Amino acid sequence: MAKEKKSNQLSNKYGASMEKIVSLAKRRGFVYPSSEIYGGLSATWDYGPLGVELKKNIQEIWWREMTRLQDNIVGLDAAIMMHPKTWEASGHVENFSDPLVDCKQCKTRFREDKLSAEVIASKKCPECGGELTEPRQFNLMFSTHLGPVADSGSIVYLRPETAQGIFVNFKNVVDTSRVQIPFGIAQIGKAFRNEITTKNFIFRTCEFEQMEMQFFVKPGTDDKWFEYWKEQRMNYYVNQLGVLPENLHFHQHGPDELAHYAKDAYDVEYHYPFGWEEQEGIHNRTDFDLGRHGEYCGKEINYLDPQTNERYIPYVIETSAGLTRSVLVCLMDAYHEETIGEDKQGKPDVRTVLHLHPNVAPIKAAVLPLVKKDGLADLAKDIQKELNLEFNTFYDQSGAIGRRYRRQDEVGTPFCITVDYDSKDNHDVTIRFRDSMEQIRVPREGLAARLKDEMKKYKRV
Amino acid sequence: MAKEKKSNQLSNKYGASMEKIVSLAKRRGFVYPSSEIYGGLSATWDYGPLGVELKKNIQEIWWREMTRLQDNIVGLDAAIMMHPKTWEASGHVENFSDPLVDCKQCKTRFREDKLSAEVIASKKCPECGGELTEPRQFNLMFSTHLGPVADSGSIVYLRPETAQGIFVNFKNVVDTSRVQIPFGIAQIGKAFRNEITTKNFIFRTCEFEQMEMQFFVKPGTDDKWFEYWKEQRMNYYVNQLGVLPENLHFHQHGPDELAHYAKDAYDVEYHYPFGWEEQEGIHNRTDFDLGRHGEYCGKEINYLDPQTNERYIPYVIETSAGLTRSVLVCLMDAYHEETIGEDKQGKPDVRTVLHLHPNVAPIKAAVLPLVKKDGLADLAKDIQKELNLEFNTFYDQSGAIGRRYRRQDEVGTPFCITVDYDSKDNHDVTIRFRDSMEQIRVPREGLAARLKDEMKKYKRV
Repeated sequence: MAKEKKSNQLSNKYGASMEKIVSLAKRRGFVYPSSEIYGGLSATWDYGPLGVELKKNIQEIWWREMTRLQDNIVGLDAAIMMHPKTWEASGHVENFSDPLVDCKQCKTRFREDKLSAEVIASKKCPECGGELTEPRQFNLMFSTHLGPVADSGSIVYLRPETAQGIFVNFKNVVDTSRVQIPFGIAQIGKAFRNEITTKNFIFRTCEFEQMEMQFFVKPGTDDKWFEYWKEQRMNYYVNQLGVLPENLHFHQHGPDELAHYAKDAYDVEYHYPFGWEEQEGIHNRTDFDLGRHGEYCGKEINYLDPQTNERYIPYVIETSAGLTRSVLVCLMDAYHEETIGEDKQGKPDVRTVLHLHPNVAPIKAAVLPLVKKDGLADLAKDIQKELNLEFNTFYDQSGAIGRRYRRQDEVGTPFCITVDYDSKDNHDVTIRFRDSMEQIRVPREGLAARLKDEMKKYKRV
Repeated sequence: MAKEKKSNQLSNKYGASMEKIVSLAKRRGFVYPSSEIYGGLSATWDYGPLGVELKKNIQEIWWREMTRLQDNIVGLDAAIMMHPKTWEASGHVENFSDPLVDCKQCKTRFREDKLSAEVIASKKCPECGGELTEPRQFNLMFSTHLGPVADSGSIVYLRPETAQGIFVNFKNVVDTSRVQIPFGIAQIGKAFRNEITTKNFIFRTCEFEQMEMQFFVKPGTDDKWFEYWKEQRMNYYVNQLGVLPENLHFHQHGPDELAHYAKDAYDVEYHYPFGWEEQEGIHNRTDFDLGRHGEYCGKEINYLDPQTNERYIPYVIETSAGLTRSVLVCLMDAYHEETIGEDKQGKPDVRTVLHLHPNVAPIKAAVLPLVKKDGLADLAKDIQKELNLEFNTFYDQSGAIGRRYRRQDEVGTPFCITVDYDSKDNHDVTIRFRDSMEQIRVPREGLAARLKDEMKKYKRV
């Protein structure tokens, strides 16, 4: 356990550590431990008022970029519970398992593939030195029973990935949507894996959300499209989510890592304080999935090219991103502790700020009356109401104005709008910028449009 | 089964029947039977390219109306898997069950509470006349096992409602979000019920989505807020989703229908061709839920009024809407078969049109080049690209223009943009309106803004 604690405390050069992110997330309503009043459920987390907005923003951006702004990608939303044959065809029933060993003495359970060669050879528990059991395969799919009788005929699984919902609907989409190869199907949704070791906050959880796109291409053009999507997806993290390029790189799967269905695979990895970890996978899945479902349902799933009259099983280039993981990347990457002069006691004045891209920031603007009295609160509320028609805002009237700015910095609000006595007479307000802390005076009229312009001009610092 | 078929075929005065909606939904990519290549899973459905946009639109509208445009409502997104004590406190482990009886002869299973008094008295199967078993209680929650051992200690349930995720997080939200009573917490998410009889397409399914808001008020003010939310929620269906007022009414729960926790309850019911059915519930849940969770977690969950220093357990007014059910209401209510003159053979020319509110329409505008050649296709694609920056569009170049209009009518696209030879010279295009079938000529410049204006002016026909 000491080791885990240390990894939580490791920080990057901007002061971000997992421990600080977890604490900020809880304190400011981004992410709460699930069912916390009952002691929590380590496998899952709940998203609070700011977390749900951050997550929704990422979801919206991904959907817009991957469907609306593409000529040839349509959306889908398949159910979590699918016909169990799906998971036989996909190989999950047979292969989606971890080898587990138990200590006969202290009853601790381990994933054998995470133990050292030494421990495996000695068959002695790394915790207490007790004897370890032989490994047994433990399937990571959650199962439940559909209908009132708990017999094997009624077993259904909670999907361990969203991809298969796309493959089984390939024919339906082709028949009803006028798509032609090359084309993609995009989906956002929950998936479930019975992970023995959940860890690192929302990085690995039993219930999580994926944003997946399966791009169907003619065999032989797959390498070209693989390169295309690799580039697109890396650009997305930098330009759409505002992640620092220095914290992103590609990791190519070696022969030992490559899934049985994959011809080639790259992970977009993010540089966490505790190391590089997968954020998104770009996979050339070949014709494996459509081929297998064709076999298992008894009718080949293929595509008839309307121009050439050729019939073939398409290849699939997949981009598979974690939505819950994206929330963590956004928080971790945006977190900066910055010394901005000295406080009254002459000590360094450190502010915590989330340099979130305005695209993803849960609150776009906070409206702050300088004081509550003399009608400033009402004026500020009117302004907030106007802005709310365009984007999400927050109203805060309590505490010194400097402290209110800092509270907004800490949750990544790009703009504070300060309403003061002059605002009443001159119909203008102050915009205070999160990153530069600069303040400018602008007319109240057209404020929403002005802020939208400023969001477009945003550059990551 | 004959009875079920009949109910599917019942139609309203505009020609909408469940059978026609199911067929349209499948044919045009709104809703597919789940895992259809494996014979389907009757409990669940998959949303195709148009269905996922329709569903997302409803979701967005609800979220905007219930969080951003309210001063005092924040969002939340709790996990599907919660600590099992949650469901003891809520009463679901004990009470959330149906009484089932089986026919000993033909093995058919029935919900006893749906059988006639006569059948129950005779204990004879209504299908084959065989003997029925005694009723036994069958809990509607799906259960699964968290962690590798299938013992009772590791049982978790898939949440049967989203509401409890809000109640268990009440304290967290109060402590981290500066909300003050009266305030609400809103959530959209999946819930699961092991229904024995799923029926009526997506009306009742085992996996479904809820849009719930729990509004926390001071006891004594609950009746006032109950009235407020009743009115708000009815207006939402008419003004935001565009449902015909004649198809909506309130049904008050009688003493025999009222849940054990409820002081008062009204359903917003929709007039389906097969009868009035619940679309949304507005419930006065009193302090039941927070009180019970306080008991079960061992620490009273209460609220300290910062003005009066009074401490109390808030009352809850709940608005609980079905998202999946809203998709069905939108389709059903918008579906019209309209005779619009005669065809070439002198027969009535009937068009099928979805009079969807532009808010919810999956495609806002279809861009149609009159012909493919002479650069019209490219020009149309350029126009589509511009419009796509603002909203979802569709490009269609194949078939006679009249047929293309009809295809868009059938999926509820409010505007068709026709690009013809004059468009090249004069930089203008035709807007063809779905409802009136009128056509007007407008400049290409500012087309997106013009269409947005037209959407704002929309009146339901």
